[in-house]
Amino acid sequence: MTLKIAIAQTNFLVGNINANIDNIVNAAVHARDALGADMIVFPELTITGYPAEDLLLRADFIAAANNALYQLADRITDIALVVGFPEQDGDKLYNSAAVLNQGAIIACYRKQALPNYGVFDEQRYFDAGQQACVFEFNGSFIGLTICEDVWQGGIIDASKQAGADILLTLNASPFNLGKSHQREAIICKQVKAAQIPLVYVNQIGGQDELIFDGASFVTDAQGGIVFRAVEFQAQISVVEFNNNHPLKSSCAPLYSGIVGVYNALVLGIKDYVRKNGFQGAILGLSGGIDSALVLALAVDALGADKVEAVLMPSRYTQTMSIDDALLEADALGVKHHTIPIGPAVDAFTGMLAGLFAGSARDTTEENIQARCRGVILMALSNKQGKLLLTTGNKSEMSVGYATLYGDMAGGFAPIKDVPKLLVYQLSRYRNSLSPVIPERVLTRPPSAELAPDQIDEDSLPPYDVLDPILERYVELDQSAEQIIAAGFRQEDVARAVSLVDRNEYKRRQSPPGIRITSRAFGRDRRYPITSGYKGI
Amino acid sequence: MTLKIAIAQTNFLVGNINANIDNIVNAAVHARDALGADMIVFPELTITGYPAEDLLLRADFIAAANNALYQLADRITDIALVVGFPEQDGDKLYNSAAVLNQGAIIACYRKQALPNYGVFDEQRYFDAGQQACVFEFNGSFIGLTICEDVWQGGIIDASKQAGADILLTLNASPFNLGKSHQREAIICKQVKAAQIPLVYVNQIGGQDELIFDGASFVTDAQGGIVFRAVEFQAQISVVEFNNNHPLKSSCAPLYSGIVGVYNALVLGIKDYVRKNGFQGAILGLSGGIDSALVLALAVDALGADKVEAVLMPSRYTQTMSIDDALLEADALGVKHHTIPIGPAVDAFTGMLAGLFAGSARDTTEENIQARCRGVILMALSNKQGKLLLTTGNKSEMSVGYATLYGDMAGGFAPIKDVPKLLVYQLSRYRNSLSPVIPERVLTRPPSAELAPDQIDEDSLPPYDVLDPILERYVELDQSAEQIIAAGFRQEDVARAVSLVDRNEYKRRQSPPGIRITSRAFGRDRRYPITSGYKGI
Repeated sequence: MTLKIAIAQTNFLVGNINANIDNIVNAAVHARDALGADMIVFPELTITGYPAEDLLLRADFIAAANNALYQLADRITDIALVVGFPEQDGDKLYNSAAVLNQGAIIACYRKQALPNYGVFDEQRYFDAGQQACVFEFNGSFIGLTICEDVWQGGIIDASKQAGADILLTLNASPFNLGKSHQREAIICKQVKAAQIPLVYVNQIGGQDELIFDGASFVTDAQGGIVFRAVEFQAQISVVEFNNNHPLKSSCAPLYSGIVGVYNALVLGIKDYVRKNGFQGAILGLSGGIDSALVLALAVDALGADKVEAVLMPSRYTQTMSIDDALLEADALGVKHHTIPIGPAVDAFTGMLAGLFAGSARDTTEENIQARCRGVILMALSNKQGKLLLTTGNKSEMSVGYATLYGDMAGGFAPIKDVPKLLVYQLSRYRNSLSPVIPERVLTRPPSAELAPDQIDEDSLPPYDVLDPILERYVELDQSAEQIIAAGFRQEDVARAVSLVDRNEYKRRQSPPGIRITSRAFGRDRRYPITSGYKGI
Repeated sequence: MTLKIAIAQTNFLVGNINANIDNIVNAAVHARDALGADMIVFPELTITGYPAEDLLLRADFIAAANNALYQLADRITDIALVVGFPEQDGDKLYNSAAVLNQGAIIACYRKQALPNYGVFDEQRYFDAGQQACVFEFNGSFIGLTICEDVWQGGIIDASKQAGADILLTLNASPFNLGKSHQREAIICKQVKAAQIPLVYVNQIGGQDELIFDGASFVTDAQGGIVFRAVEFQAQISVVEFNNNHPLKSSCAPLYSGIVGVYNALVLGIKDYVRKNGFQGAILGLSGGIDSALVLALAVDALGADKVEAVLMPSRYTQTMSIDDALLEADALGVKHHTIPIGPAVDAFTGMLAGLFAGSARDTTEENIQARCRGVILMALSNKQGKLLLTTGNKSEMSVGYATLYGDMAGGFAPIKDVPKLLVYQLSRYRNSLSPVIPERVLTRPPSAELAPDQIDEDSLPPYDVLDPILERYVELDQSAEQIIAAGFRQEDVARAVSLVDRNEYKRRQSPPGIRITSRAFGRDRRYPITSGYKGI
């Protein structure tokens, strides 16, 4: 007895129900006609996209999604569809998976485990399902589960006890560094314990802060991988089951950490630009490592012809910074402009001279320079309909080493969740593919160049000390005491922790960026601005 | 048998456990020694403040809160304390209320109803309690409940069935227009049904977006109000119970809608400035109604000597705007400066002339003006440590009629949740106390003055049409179809709805503001930026 199940690792647009339905139909036709599939399985909440956030509170949106599902059943025959949708039942809403076959809904499962931590808010929207769902199809008994369900042991077991021979899992499981390995390890362990083959279908694509990496897979009943889809790419594949045993098929490799992060960042930029209808992207190119990396990412995501770089030197910009920025733009074949900021800075200085007379120079004057650059970049973005990319990294976002409305101005912040040390690693990785960032940019001390002879280390611990402290404080919720006990100097910990504590107001106004760690600033870390908490 | 219960309507700082403990002790000593109270009841999560958000995920913070509670029991005798705290029990966390008496914890209740909608995320942090808690004190049987618990019927009933003669409720119930009336109506109805007197203690104060209005009250078993604390003020009062019946005491009136909102806005500004340690506030004064109202609110909150106004005229600023702005500053006795933006605008125009040659004038040039103002205001804010208040209203935030990093630049947005029509009502109310806003400002057509002879109605429906459409779409989640069916013109609805849909990216980077409606932008309305949803 043979069953061919197609894995639809798809990239859908949140909120666009009609387009998503068309994509479902096209994928199903392809799976049926070109791949000979009997059934096609889509990711979690296929019809609405994931996460649709508070769109799920709109009655019109939910009604449209439910109507779309019922109509979908009539649009395609001779292949069964397993699709996710927000199921309305009276005043309850479920995160459900329906099986459509020959014009009928033959099964419907309601997700039982609703994650409400980290980036997830599913208990804000959904009621929890209470039972397993197993349906018969071409002689096989197939169980349905959704994402979080299979991270816990009990729900897989319950499905098997309800008679399932094969388990399907619809997912919207977001990427972070190491996640694809972790995900497979945990789920294969559950599968092995329960002794049931599992088809794991994950969506791919960028959605605001989140990247879905795909890496869909099929395991046999012993937890052995027999199929794996390519990470970070849409892909429709088919796996054949013989008497409920999956046959060995293609297995794309999982990317290593750095390569995975690089690909995630490229996909994130590409999808944010494409899904939001921008004409391309622009960015300020300083000659520093951060903007060099963002330029390379943007070109890899969009193509050189869609990216524009702007050099905005001031009196504090070193000649080598300008030289290096020009080398970067040329190496990638990107159009670039040079607009010295002197005239605007001088204008503001003159306008404020009266009020500032007698007061000492401080960060105010540095911020004015950064904000003049922000005005120029936003003007170019507005005029051309190109997305302004900011170039700040996670280390800077953590400690507030950035200017609100200055270098923080922009629509999207690709490396906002990338700590500085990882910026270097990613840059070296990119240079290993083709040399695009001058070696000097990788070796000279980082500087904001907003004051004479300024370098980052004047006001911050060195990054090889700062980054591990930040990881412990921000991502792992360790206390200052614990971090010091782990061997860091008290003064470095105190400096880092107090800067993180008091810069929440800046982060709150930063553009969204791509989440690549286990805890990004944004939906993932929700701190009060007004707070008497002192980590040290 | 007499029992004197003190109602501690307090204003605590989120995250500052030590300060909160000291405040608890001071309030308890006052209640015991000056008011003769036998017991004092504090608001929900007294020790940490509410909402502490993801601070609640930090093990060090939770441990400190639990330790603080245990030590608190020893710090005061001869009065019982009822305080809220995040109770750690193994790997579970509860939103709890403990009763401390003579050095011991004599009862501890775990909140059963955990709100996870609107601005609330309690299921992100807490596990739900499962049972009622009734304790004996001086011969009375007293039941404990926390906030959401008493909005539902069952939990009050269960407490009564468990033997409670009197019910205590610890709350952190945020304000919105009409909320204090709604809150009393609903809870008194529950009380009447259950026939049990209830002591309702709410916190007061501003916490980022949220205002807690207090309006604590005591009802008799028939749901009749026998005591009410003043709204928007800290107050410790005592109510005497005789054989479990509360005696009539002082009843402050509830404010009407407009007055309540005005007081909420004043409290919000005051607490944001105070709790975040600013030296005062500055704002741009345009001569329009929005900045006029924000100026009055800031002065009422902080005093005229703490507020500074900046006029930044351009070639498009009408003389009457300058005149009116000066009248406003003078009427309130506020220091003001005039900094024409011409030099900066000209500098940017010159710097961009080459790149913009041949392209038509559009909103880019308007945005440059707004952003020059943003740079000036932020420079003054940075130099003086004063909070920059933005002056945009909810109608503008809804449709994106504002410039990112321009008039949206600032640390706090007091009227961000106030629709334009309500801005007028609040201004008239303020003028009824003393004339501070010139009549002409209330009657001339609103204009951004960023282009010749520009008025808002050139690009938006009139506000008496726009505001009701926005309320239906944003606050009530009505569909465009429903709004049109209610009598609005299709083209007005289409314009408003499509502008709301596509300006989420701007709102995401706006400063926090004070929530005064039933749904504010921010934590309350979580929409994706990347979205194919079209409301029309």
